[in-house]
Amino acid sequence: MNAESTWTLDAKECWERLRSTSVGRLAVIVDEAPEIFPVNFVVEHSALVIRTGEGTKVDAIRSRPRVAFEIDGLEAGTAFSVIVKGDAKTISAPDELRDTVSLDVSPLQPGTKNHFIRILAEEVTGRSFPVTDPSTWETELSHVARAPHE
Amino acid sequence: MNAESTWTLDAKECWERLRSTSVGRLAVIVDEAPEIFPVNFVVEHSALVIRTGEGTKVDAIRSRPRVAFEIDGLEAGTAFSVIVKGDAKTISAPDELRDTVSLDVSPLQPGTKNHFIRILAEEVTGRSFPVTDPSTWETELSHVARAPHE
Repeated sequence: MNAESTWTLDAKECWERLRSTSVGRLAVIVDEAPEIFPVNFVVEHSALVIRTGEGTKVDAIRSRPRVAFEIDGLEAGTAFSVIVKGDAKTISAPDELRDTVSLDVSPLQPGTKNHFIRILAEEVTGRSFPVTDPSTWETELSHVARAPHE
Repeated sequence: MNAESTWTLDAKECWERLRSTSVGRLAVIVDEAPEIFPVNFVVEHSALVIRTGEGTKVDAIRSRPRVAFEIDGLEAGTAFSVIVKGDAKTISAPDELRDTVSLDVSPLQPGTKNHFIRILAEEVTGRSFPVTDPSTWETELSHVARAPHE
């Protein structure tokens, strides 16, 4: 790593970027192999909350709760990436659900998405680095508007 | 999943998107936990090639070659994501390296990045779906210019 051109983001800088981004990628283990899913999320205290349907993500974290989560983006001529690691759990108890439904978190894709996954951030790391030619940047997903709540 | 608003990309559509994107995210397993890394990549026939330094990614695929790789982006009012799964290996034999060095693939971050990882795409899946408010889209990483070769 070249210290002159890559630097580490501190915790505050990581959380600022997490709060201003709405799409990330969740990595889980399924049948001993890694899987990645793009997801909409929100920050809730020191956790991330994802809304999803029943399926691979929910099944995966029930058996292997440890997950990794990533966002990346550009700002003012530098690129950044933030990685969150921690245990994830599905939120199903009515009280927990009541708190979480008030969050402005919607699924990335439409459909029946009545499960919430909460990732407790145990480790948050981020890096920032210059990119060579801003003219080639293109519009991307990280701030896609959330679909209306079903 | 709502068939009216989400659709599957066929193999050709997935590869078109892979060829026109330069930043993706690689998921590997390290110590029985998933890890994600944003990486620069290029398509080489039915494989993806990533340039990287010695480190976690290289160590991880030597012991657990199965990986997942993700790109996402926006085009003409729809969002897409493409997932590639397959076995990864480091390229170290001189002949293999000679072929690969000619590819226009540079590390996402500067530094000494003399390892190449090739992912043989065994499974390629993609989805496309509308997003609700294009005005909130922002510039993102997927087409960041590659740094000059070291």
